[in-house]
Amino acid sequence: MSPNSASIGILGATGYTGVELLRLLADHPSARVRTLTSERHAGQPIAAVFPHLQGRELPALSKVGDDDLGALDVLFGCLPHGTTQEVIRELPRGPKVIDLSADFRLSDPAAYESTYGQPHRAIERQRDAVYGLTELSRAAIRSTDLVANPGCYPTSAQLPLSPLLEARLIAPDPIVIDAKSGVTGAGRAAKETSLHAEVSEGLHAYGVSSHRHTPEIEQGLSEAAGRPVAVTFTPHLVPMNRGILSTIYVHLASGVAAEDLQTALEGRYTGEPFVQVLPFRSLPATRHVRGTNLCLIAVHPGRLPGRAILICVIDNLVKGASGQALQNMNLMLGMPETAGLGQAALFP
Amino acid sequence: MSPNSASIGILGATGYTGVELLRLLADHPSARVRTLTSERHAGQPIAAVFPHLQGRELPALSKVGDDDLGALDVLFGCLPHGTTQEVIRELPRGPKVIDLSADFRLSDPAAYESTYGQPHRAIERQRDAVYGLTELSRAAIRSTDLVANPGCYPTSAQLPLSPLLEARLIAPDPIVIDAKSGVTGAGRAAKETSLHAEVSEGLHAYGVSSHRHTPEIEQGLSEAAGRPVAVTFTPHLVPMNRGILSTIYVHLASGVAAEDLQTALEGRYTGEPFVQVLPFRSLPATRHVRGTNLCLIAVHPGRLPGRAILICVIDNLVKGASGQALQNMNLMLGMPETAGLGQAALFP
Amino acid sequence: MSPNSASIGILGATGYTGVELLRLLADHPSARVRTLTSERHAGQPIAAVFPHLQGRELPALSKVGDDDLGALDVLFGCLPHGTTQEVIRELPRGPKVIDLSADFRLSDPAAYESTYGQPHRAIERQRDAVYGLTELSRAAIRSTDLVANPGCYPTSAQLPLSPLLEARLIAPDPIVIDAKSGVTGAGRAAKETSLHAEVSEGLHAYGVSSHRHTPEIEQGLSEAAGRPVAVTFTPHLVPMNRGILSTIYVHLASGVAAEDLQTALEGRYTGEPFVQVLPFRSLPATRHVRGTNLCLIAVHPGRLPGRAILICVIDNLVKGASGQALQNMNLMLGMPETAGLGQAALFP
Amino acid sequence: MSPNSASIGILGATGYTGVELLRLLADHPSARVRTLTSERHAGQPIAAVFPHLQGRELPALSKVGDDDLGALDVLFGCLPHGTTQEVIRELPRGPKVIDLSADFRLSDPAAYESTYGQPHRAIERQRDAVYGLTELSRAAIRSTDLVANPGCYPTSAQLPLSPLLEARLIAPDPIVIDAKSGVTGAGRAAKETSLHAEVSEGLHAYGVSSHRHTPEIEQGLSEAAGRPVAVTFTPHLVPMNRGILSTIYVHLASGVAAEDLQTALEGRYTGEPFVQVLPFRSLPATRHVRGTNLCLIAVHPGRLPGRAILICVIDNLVKGASGQALQNMNLMLGMPETAGLGQAALFP
Repeated sequence: MSPNSASIGILGATGYTGVELLRLLADHPSARVRTLTSERHAGQPIAAVFPHLQGRELPALSKVGDDDLGALDVLFGCLPHGTTQEVIRELPRGPKVIDLSADFRLSDPAAYESTYGQPHRAIERQRDAVYGLTELSRAAIRSTDLVANPGCYPTSAQLPLSPLLEARLIAPDPIVIDAKSGVTGAGRAAKETSLHAEVSEGLHAYGVSSHRHTPEIEQGLSEAAGRPVAVTFTPHLVPMNRGILSTIYVHLASGVAAEDLQTALEGRYTGEPFVQVLPFRSLPATRHVRGTNLCLIAVHPGRLPGRAILICVIDNLVKGASGQALQNMNLMLGMPETAGLGQAALFP
Repeated sequence: MSPNSASIGILGATGYTGVELLRLLADHPSARVRTLTSERHAGQPIAAVFPHLQGRELPALSKVGDDDLGALDVLFGCLPHGTTQEVIRELPRGPKVIDLSADFRLSDPAAYESTYGQPHRAIERQRDAVYGLTELSRAAIRSTDLVANPGCYPTSAQLPLSPLLEARLIAPDPIVIDAKSGVTGAGRAAKETSLHAEVSEGLHAYGVSSHRHTPEIEQGLSEAAGRPVAVTFTPHLVPMNRGILSTIYVHLASGVAAEDLQTALEGRYTGEPFVQVLPFRSLPATRHVRGTNLCLIAVHPGRLPGRAILICVIDNLVKGASGQALQNMNLMLGMPETAGLGQAALFP
Repeated sequence: MSPNSASIGILGATGYTGVELLRLLADHPSARVRTLTSERHAGQPIAAVFPHLQGRELPALSKVGDDDLGALDVLFGCLPHGTTQEVIRELPRGPKVIDLSADFRLSDPAAYESTYGQPHRAIERQRDAVYGLTELSRAAIRSTDLVANPGCYPTSAQLPLSPLLEARLIAPDPIVIDAKSGVTGAGRAAKETSLHAEVSEGLHAYGVSSHRHTPEIEQGLSEAAGRPVAVTFTPHLVPMNRGILSTIYVHLASGVAAEDLQTALEGRYTGEPFVQVLPFRSLPATRHVRGTNLCLIAVHPGRLPGRAILICVIDNLVKGASGQALQNMNLMLGMPETAGLGQAALFP
Repeated sequence: MSPNSASIGILGATGYTGVELLRLLADHPSARVRTLTSERHAGQPIAAVFPHLQGRELPALSKVGDDDLGALDVLFGCLPHGTTQEVIRELPRGPKVIDLSADFRLSDPAAYESTYGQPHRAIERQRDAVYGLTELSRAAIRSTDLVANPGCYPTSAQLPLSPLLEARLIAPDPIVIDAKSGVTGAGRAAKETSLHAEVSEGLHAYGVSSHRHTPEIEQGLSEAAGRPVAVTFTPHLVPMNRGILSTIYVHLASGVAAEDLQTALEGRYTGEPFVQVLPFRSLPATRHVRGTNLCLIAVHPGRLPGRAILICVIDNLVKGASGQALQNMNLMLGMPETAGLGQAALFP
């Protein structure tokens, strides 16, 4: 641990994104976890909730308000949607805040209200928030103290699509995003629909035409395209713990070939440590990124002329949540962007 | 067992479609299994290969040619693609043949050759073959002695799409079929890519823009539409044993609403014992049909005007293979179409 | 459905044992489900809770007390442990009651109190209750109107052990029962420990030296042995939905060989439709019994002289719960014992 | 990478233990992989076999004999049992060899022959081989150039049992080891019995009273006890990729309590970085060690006096194979024993 280690707090440390941050931070050379909050388990050691953290030097769980959060360098918000904004509104300025909930992702308060069914209660902070899709917004992330960490589905959709819309290589309509996610995307809440016996050995779609990540995806794509983009987005629940695979169906702009998409994406992501554009017509699997911050993108020609298919895989808990949050922290603190994110995929 | 029981032979009984036929036939009131062939295991009792069949009265495994197949009433072909046609070509006429391989599904020999990479070797029998998507071809199935049993993916695509194309309620292009299948679809061959450690806890697409089921899907849809239909079809491998879920993205014909698709499908499938059109905006899961011959269809409005999303689930080994084969047998023999197919779903 | 169909009620129909009863009863020729209770979902159709039951003719969910339960022929109790006794105490006499909870399994009220931490509240009915391990207690089951349906683990332990203890072929000590269960054994309650992400891809023991099924196992074995028998019993949670495999380590009585256990068990279970003693040294798998009422038993010689190993597999939801309950119902009503229980295993 | 990096070769790099070594070595500060052999895939980049290794600086696959293996510092043998000894016999002296196969584990050539069914073909090297259960044999490992890396099951059995037998706290008989393993223990060979559809959603025992790891376990325990020890060992295949849980049933020596086992094990493993003795009566899960080199041990009192139960969990691919191999390499080269082995568990 460096003497200049950043002091870290995690609000809501006992969910899956919280514990994943702890896994990644264990490999970080210049970060020290000082505060872990859990309203439900305050007073207990974290190993009482996650026995595999036994033996790690970590603070006991506390309640928000027990510790002086203003003295920390970085705060990760891993609280449920809707409650985060109230906590963040009350925080002292000082710490860099990276919020993994959806609360600050939609820049338009009206869009927030119509999507989440309640008015935003920290609008003054919403104004400063930067949407933290790292590869697409580095400059803004470096200079803010509040990052809205992107959703897992939106990350898997925007990384392949945004550069193509920006370069006008694909039509803004139709865009079909058929996404498949592992079950940790539903969080650690004890719900009947997340039970092993309900989830394993089967598959279903949910939130068809109505999932809350749609406006978030469209906000990013519209910005990239420079005009309103609306998409068809269908998420599915797959019986695995980690991973998102998005299969994206696009129509090519006039005169454009699928190979041009390949070239454009390769050019856009050259030198990126975490975004890999695979050789044309590759078949990425979520297994290839399990436990890593990688995003793999493949381009396929359509069977019909003028069409292409993009495939994007990430680990929903890493590049789709805690890994990207840590990447953003590194950027905000001027540390090497890959610090704590060098894990090789766990396969099998 | 009725005195008028049909005598049944299964060619290639030790794969997953063969053993699934045995499971279903155990509940059939008027069928008796007389011959089970397996080139690899000939001479052994079937329970040596499938211990769970211990105690069932079944013939020992034999080689094709050992028994007089011509004396049987029905022959199910569960052999690998490509070899089936050679066996069927040599069969004596007499038994009704239901072939579960791809060999007789494409009526155009040129399409067969370009899809499967070799000329068809039983073209004279191809001419008589009826494509056995039961609900769409009852009359022809009743009067043939060779049924080409549909592929699992094509079943899940055509049942929702064919009536809509026939009624011109949807545009013939674009049609995107994003399909997800359990691993039994890959058969029982010992392949590295089908190992538990390679398949579980992950997801990937395969055969993008090139899967052999595409021409089969397009043949059926074109016939329904009365003009050539080309589709975008992407299969994915999901870590579960059984089940296919196809998410289908369509554009509505001018003046048509998603509710009209609902009405049309309900009308088309009223009274069908195995095809259920669920209430508008339902979310069918493959778990709901596990072990059954059911096909569940749901219609969703698109988020964008003029679009709709269809979801179709089947058990790939039942309605997608052996169940539909048995349904076809019942039809060909004039038995109740549901005989042997009354199983309730195994959930969980 | 026969005109003499039994009218059936299921108390607590929305848990896994309740829905499994509905699956099995769908195949029963002489049973008609008249009442389904669920305190939480009363007023809804059962298909609102279990969409795969759509289209089945079943009554809507009601509360206990809404219907005249006394008019039914049979009541299955699928309520949680502890609450069942209060409901059953208040029931009118008349219906045959088969209780799947633990409430009436221990004949000694003191043992009940020390195991379950509260005094028994229906002691007067406890006196009449017959422990319903069908193959071991047919006469008593036939003549009672209250069956305490055995626990899943105890079923898998007693079927192989009881005949051997009764015949004094094995020592009453040490007996080690190392049992492994699928997750439906934990029921459908929404608990963090039953979530897919907590259960899949891993394994653990629980209730070591303290599981509540131990006294139930010992009660049965002691009765068989004619003297007190105490066992070492360790349950484990395996990432699968259904199935129990118990590996049982015994010491042979003096002069007895492992082959003698084989002979004794074969003799004891000859002609039994649901208990199969496999050939010596067989390796039964839970897959062989998935969805069936079968119990498979294998005998292995120990590597050390004077020892033997017994392996027993059942489907915890069928022979370990709802299947055995239905078997008991058939016996109590004088119907064929196998009615509704003829399903072949679902493999794969 | 340090300038004093050790140069590493892996023989048989395309199996699961080979690829796991590559995962771990990616985190090692002073090791550089120079040679990767694969008879089947020679000439290809490793990423052609394992796409998730794309972008890592690794040599292409070669055949044994292509490279000068004698110039390497360390050779890991990840070849199949039986063929390893022939390769190792021909190797030039010089490199430290760590063999992950069973070939050099049994010090008695007669025991090898009777267990593996063929005479040993490198007896002269067998004499120098040190059995590499790191925590139990550090001095010998440091001074040898051939380590026989222990089997996964034997590691999980000996770490808890050896210190107790050495201290005469438990009886040498009976000892029952009921072990449960994930499917990667069966390797990457394309076998029907390892297919997803054959393994998932079920459980079975195998090798009852005859598994080849039994003599290996007994060799270690006998040495610890100072007299012959014979055990009952039953392995089971569990539908998960990684992990072994061994439940071990022992009888206490006269006057010894289960708490004494706890004290003895805590004392024996104090300060060990990878062996953790959990608080008395803990319930370790394989999830707690997934992807790590940890071994967790728990002690439980028996329900019967004079008995105890030990539970031991490891990741079969790490502490049960490649992790322990790397730990041994570190020891042989005088590097910090934990180098490359600091990964936190991947949960969920």
